[in-house]
Amino acid sequence: MAGPWIALLTDFGTQDTYAGVLRGVLATLAPQASLLDLTHDVPRGDVRAGAFALWQATPYFPPQTIFLCVVDPGVGSARRALAVAWKERICVGPDNGLFSYLIARDGPPNAVELAALDYQLPDPSPTFHGRDIYAPAAAHLAAGVRFSDLGPPAGDLVRFATPRLQPVDPDGIEGEVLHADRFGNLLTSIGVLRREPAALTLEPWLGQGPVRQVVGRDPHVLLASGEELELLRTYSDVPPGRSLAYIGSSGLVEIGINQASAASRLRLSPGETVQLRVRN
Amino acid sequence: MAGPWIALLTDFGTQDTYAGVLRGVLATLAPQASLLDLTHDVPRGDVRAGAFALWQATPYFPPQTIFLCVVDPGVGSARRALAVAWKERICVGPDNGLFSYLIARDGPPNAVELAALDYQLPDPSPTFHGRDIYAPAAAHLAAGVRFSDLGPPAGDLVRFATPRLQPVDPDGIEGEVLHADRFGNLLTSIGVLRREPAALTLEPWLGQGPVRQVVGRDPHVLLASGEELELLRTYSDVPPGRSLAYIGSSGLVEIGINQASAASRLRLSPGETVQLRVRN
Amino acid sequence: MAGPWIALLTDFGTQDTYAGVLRGVLATLAPQASLLDLTHDVPRGDVRAGAFALWQATPYFPPQTIFLCVVDPGVGSARRALAVAWKERICVGPDNGLFSYLIARDGPPNAVELAALDYQLPDPSPTFHGRDIYAPAAAHLAAGVRFSDLGPPAGDLVRFATPRLQPVDPDGIEGEVLHADRFGNLLTSIGVLRREPAALTLEPWLGQGPVRQVVGRDPHVLLASGEELELLRTYSDVPPGRSLAYIGSSGLVEIGINQASAASRLRLSPGETVQLRVRN
Repeated sequence: MAGPWIALLTDFGTQDTYAGVLRGVLATLAPQASLLDLTHDVPRGDVRAGAFALWQATPYFPPQTIFLCVVDPGVGSARRALAVAWKERICVGPDNGLFSYLIARDGPPNAVELAALDYQLPDPSPTFHGRDIYAPAAAHLAAGVRFSDLGPPAGDLVRFATPRLQPVDPDGIEGEVLHADRFGNLLTSIGVLRREPAALTLEPWLGQGPVRQVVGRDPHVLLASGEELELLRTYSDVPPGRSLAYIGSSGLVEIGINQASAASRLRLSPGETVQLRVRN
Repeated sequence: MAGPWIALLTDFGTQDTYAGVLRGVLATLAPQASLLDLTHDVPRGDVRAGAFALWQATPYFPPQTIFLCVVDPGVGSARRALAVAWKERICVGPDNGLFSYLIARDGPPNAVELAALDYQLPDPSPTFHGRDIYAPAAAHLAAGVRFSDLGPPAGDLVRFATPRLQPVDPDGIEGEVLHADRFGNLLTSIGVLRREPAALTLEPWLGQGPVRQVVGRDPHVLLASGEELELLRTYSDVPPGRSLAYIGSSGLVEIGINQASAASRLRLSPGETVQLRVRN
Repeated sequence: MAGPWIALLTDFGTQDTYAGVLRGVLATLAPQASLLDLTHDVPRGDVRAGAFALWQATPYFPPQTIFLCVVDPGVGSARRALAVAWKERICVGPDNGLFSYLIARDGPPNAVELAALDYQLPDPSPTFHGRDIYAPAAAHLAAGVRFSDLGPPAGDLVRFATPRLQPVDPDGIEGEVLHADRFGNLLTSIGVLRREPAALTLEPWLGQGPVRQVVGRDPHVLLASGEELELLRTYSDVPPGRSLAYIGSSGLVEIGINQASAASRLRLSPGETVQLRVRN
């Protein structure tokens, strides 16, 4: 291997040839690049889930990785095709909000519109820009083409509203379930920067204003059902089958069940309200 | 990365070790080769689906890519093991029709039977030729073994009948649904080479005779149910939830629904009849 | 490609970012290594299934491959994090039995506890040791860090009981179903080293004592239902839809149906008793 690196994030799944074809185009145009699958199983057309996956995963890839991002339900419409660059990394993909969370965390990027026909496949299909526009752009960047040669500056990008995250009273903050993972663990929008005996310092992870603290003992998560889950360290802090809350590996409060699925047992799905609370 | 390239197409899925074992064998015998997954999720034993996937994807891979193709319900039977070469690429796999559509498009290949024991694993299992015969052949080719050293010329290959594609009257051509993709888009056997205001030039994509034209206005797809779908450009040409036809990224007429699944809403599966029609 | 090789086996699935994040960490810390997915679809938390997959697949990877193995339902608990080395390969993963079958086959390994903080990501999450402890260890090994620098010797490892495999009478041996694959083929715990006209030499594949023979004609598998399946060579030895037994590609007796799923038709799942018998 050894870079340049191209990471792939799509909603193409793996049962069709679409993800394979992206790999083929990348290998053809950037034979020296190394390909890393991030995931091809973003739910179909779910741009928010794709944005969240990029937020979670990008910090763990090599510096200067080029992310080829194709979650593009509006393919062929007026929505623009972009390359978006920060100091640490470059993303290529549609202007539909897919980069919202990266922008909230990493600040405003440089962005260009993928207009230069030299860096597209000839006669792009209106229904497969992944193959004909995005993958070629990612490959040409990996092969040394200058970012600014891909097209003109793009100006403002589409961004969607940030997930819910708001104080309810001095003892609690309200957020929402963002994602249920394969294990049935539920990731919420409530990020914790630092946990101390009698205070939680919250992370303004989506840029919703200043760093905030919740001061008190006995931190726990309150579900809409009234159930309270103690904020612990890891699954095995409770017996198998028991539910808990914990600060997950992305710094977000998560809800889980030791050796079972919280998503199915607690019947919680993305969008549902949760509170992180302390007692005083 | 950087070639030689080996692309993998199988029906092994990913929950067993079979696809991983192929990668291990390839890396062992061809350490310099770069591996590219095309797909491992061809439906189990569905040779036609595998043939179609090869037809769709092969043009987008680097020249001289070696395709390791294992959709092999007759493993261990009398069906032969082959390497099949065109100028652009080489395929390795069973003689069960898997290369039918490539032959229809790219012409007759050179083919050899994988008989040379030197290029197989010792004592091949009768139920896993992918590991013991095909992967070693692909790896040895990538490592520089001459094609003709793999075994004797294979003569005629198994080919199955081409998909339906026939004129119904001067205004229409009849084909069939070939594949439903992850998004529920339905790919048909009707290929369009060129679309002009008052004529469609059809592609004889499976070699069914000469290039043909359908002359008239208002091209549309007629389903067996009587429903007519206008031939448009892309999903967003209709409101969300509305169905349409369009020329897909493989050049084939497809049926889709903007932001929903045509396969489930229209209840169409592979094999069903569709017509592409114009008005005069 | 070209080594050093790191193979990945996890129960992370592919719809989350977890497997992708492992790839990112590996590429960051071991840019020269080549990554090979073994599988990410070990059933969630199923350590035995992971152990079996390692047993099946490891012999087919390049010598010195480093296996990053994350099936870790006890993550964050007192269970130890290990690197485990034999002459042929190194594994990195939790001390929960995951290496049981490799130890049974390949003998006692050298093992160290992953205690050296220099070779972990800073401030490891208690719920994602794959990212913060195991992947960094695998990457540092691939990058040349000495095995013994990862931590102190680990002493005895957790091992679980071997699958059932016991004589029932001179004409039969009893085992159990271990795994149902994607095709619905059922792999049993009964291994056959050599098949001769009137004798089967069994493999003591999990170290359960000496090599044993079953002497007689007409070898067959007896199911708990009373059904008998002749021990044949491959699927096509019976007509489509008919069940059979055969010696599978891992040397284990398997039960299958030509072009259909034995798991669903015969309603057999892992753990169920089967006998391999002869007649005298």
